[in-house]
Amino acid sequence: MALLYLSDAERGQVWRRIFAQELPHLAFLEGQDAVHDPADVRYLATWTAPPDPAGTFPNLEMILSVGAGVDQFDFEALPDHVRVVRTVTPGLSAMMCEYVCLGVLAMHRDLARFVVQQRAETWAPGHPVLARHRTVGVMGLGTLGRAALEALRPFGFGLAGWARSPHAIAGVETYSGHDELSPFLARCDILVCLLPLTDETRGLLNARTLSQLPEGARLVMTGRGEQLDHAALIDALDTGHLAGAMLDVTDPEPLPQGHPVWHHPRILLTPHVATVTDSEEGAYSAVAAIRAHESGQAPEGLVDRARGY
Amino acid sequence: MALLYLSDAERGQVWRRIFAQELPHLAFLEGQDAVHDPADVRYLATWTAPPDPAGTFPNLEMILSVGAGVDQFDFEALPDHVRVVRTVTPGLSAMMCEYVCLGVLAMHRDLARFVVQQRAETWAPGHPVLARHRTVGVMGLGTLGRAALEALRPFGFGLAGWARSPHAIAGVETYSGHDELSPFLARCDILVCLLPLTDETRGLLNARTLSQLPEGARLVMTGRGEQLDHAALIDALDTGHLAGAMLDVTDPEPLPQGHPVWHHPRILLTPHVATVTDSEEGAYSAVAAIRAHESGQAPEGLVDRARGY
Repeated sequence: MALLYLSDAERGQVWRRIFAQELPHLAFLEGQDAVHDPADVRYLATWTAPPDPAGTFPNLEMILSVGAGVDQFDFEALPDHVRVVRTVTPGLSAMMCEYVCLGVLAMHRDLARFVVQQRAETWAPGHPVLARHRTVGVMGLGTLGRAALEALRPFGFGLAGWARSPHAIAGVETYSGHDELSPFLARCDILVCLLPLTDETRGLLNARTLSQLPEGARLVMTGRGEQLDHAALIDALDTGHLAGAMLDVTDPEPLPQGHPVWHHPRILLTPHVATVTDSEEGAYSAVAAIRAHESGQAPEGLVDRARGY
Repeated sequence: MALLYLSDAERGQVWRRIFAQELPHLAFLEGQDAVHDPADVRYLATWTAPPDPAGTFPNLEMILSVGAGVDQFDFEALPDHVRVVRTVTPGLSAMMCEYVCLGVLAMHRDLARFVVQQRAETWAPGHPVLARHRTVGVMGLGTLGRAALEALRPFGFGLAGWARSPHAIAGVETYSGHDELSPFLARCDILVCLLPLTDETRGLLNARTLSQLPEGARLVMTGRGEQLDHAALIDALDTGHLAGAMLDVTDPEPLPQGHPVWHHPRILLTPHVATVTDSEEGAYSAVAAIRAHESGQAPEGLVDRARGY
C-alpha cells in the first residue's frame, strides 16, 4: 500500500519525514520511477494529475491536491470512486486574509496611484476616504471568504458577500445566486473575488458585470485568472469606471511578455502569491485526510465533484 | 470672545457651521483680516502658528492644532499659560491603523519587490513567510501606537512595543527608555515608527540604530521624516541589511526632485497620507477641547509642553 508523491523535491522531504512518523504502514514513493507495481498505489499527492491516473493505478482511491485548488484536475476522466481532496491548512487561510487585507487597503488608500507618483517624483496627497464610507464585497463565502470578511471587519468597512448558495453572516449583507449578482455588485466599492474556478465562475467578471460595479470601484482578484476578462478590466480602468485593481491571478500564468496588465498604471500585480501551502501544514492535512478516509469518514477538504470544488 | 481660524477654506466652512451650532457665544473669525480687536481672540485654530501669537493676541488662552501633530509650534515663544491642544478624532486613529496594517502587510508580503518585478515583466513568486514567524515592533505607545498594535494582533505577528516611559500591554513585549532601545530593535523584523517629533526622537533612526535591527528587517515610517537618517536607510537597504521600507514621511516634505528615495527599488513612498483629519471630526474635537477648557478641565489632546507632545 503506497502513496505516490509527484511534486517538488523540497516539499517532498518534509512530506516523507511526516508520513514516516504518522502513517508508517504506507510506503512513500516519490516520482513515477519509484513505482514498481502500479497496483500498490492507493493515494496520489500531486498538483497536476498525470493523464488517466485511474487507468495507470488500478487501486487508486484518492487524489490529494498539494495546494488549495483542484481546478487543475479533469474530473470527467476520473471514475466516481476516486475521491479528490484539497489541502486545508490554517496557514492557507491566514495568508489569504493577509493578502485580502493588503489588497483591500492598497485599493482603499490609492497605493497604485502613489506607486505611479513615486516613479514620476510627484508629491500629491489627495483626500483619503473613511473606511465606513466604503463597502467591501467578497465573492465566495467558503472558509477563505468568511475568514477574509472577519479580517476586514475591524477596519470599519461596510461588508457584503455573494455566493452560489445562501449564507447568513452577522454584520454582512449577503446575496446569492445569479439573480442577486447585480444588486450585490452595485454595493461593492471594493470587490474581492475569492471564488473557486468552475464552469459557472469562468468569465464571470466581464464587461457587463464590471459595469454593474459603482463608478470608481476597485477590484482585488485572488480567485483564478480565468474568472476575469482582462481586456474588459483594462477598458473599465481606462474609461475611469473602475479606479484600480490588484491582481494576484491572471490568465495565463505567468503573464506573457508585453501583456497590457504589466504596465497599466492602475493595476498592482503580484505573481500568484496570496497563499502558498506551508509544506508541514500540507503534509499534516494529507495525513488527516488519509486517516479519515481509512476510518470511513469524509475527509476535510473533500471535493464535491458535481460542484467542482 | 472669539476663535480665530487660520487654515484652509473648505475645512473652514465645516468648522463655521459646527461652531455656530455648538458654541454660539464664540465669534468665528476666519483669516487675520477678520480680526477687528486682537483682544477678542481667546482661541487660535491653525496648523502653523503665526509669529508671536501671544504678543499679537493678548488674551489668547489656547492654540488648537487642526491636525494631530504639534511639532510645528515653537513652544519657547509661547507664554506658559497658553495651552496647546492636538486634534484627537476617532477617524485619525482608524486611518493610522489602516496605513500601519497596509505598510506592515506590504513589507511582510514583499510588495516593493513585486512592484519592481511588474515594471520589469518578471513573474517570480518567492516564498512567503508565515506571520507568526515575524515580530512587528511599534515605537510610540500613545493612542495611535496602542491602536496600531491592536489592529495588527489578528494577523498573528509577534508584537513588541517601545516608548519613552514603561507601558504594559497584554500580549506585547514592551520596552522603554534609552537602555531598552537596542534589545527592542533586535526583536523587530518589521519596525513601525509612530513616535512624535521631539528633541529626543529627532534622528533616532540612524546608521547605529538601524544596524541593531535583525538582518532582512523592514521599516514602516509614519512618525516624522526628521526622525530618520535617509542616507543611513538607503545604505542599509543597499547592503541588504534591511529588505524594504515604506515611508509616509520624509525630510523635507515634499521630497526634492532627484532625491534617491524616489527611485529606490526597495522603498514604497506615499506623500504623508497616513492620517488626514476629517473636517467634521476635527471641528467636534476642537469644540470638546474648548468646552473642557471653559469648564476648568484638561482637554483631551492637551500637550505636555515639557515633553513636546
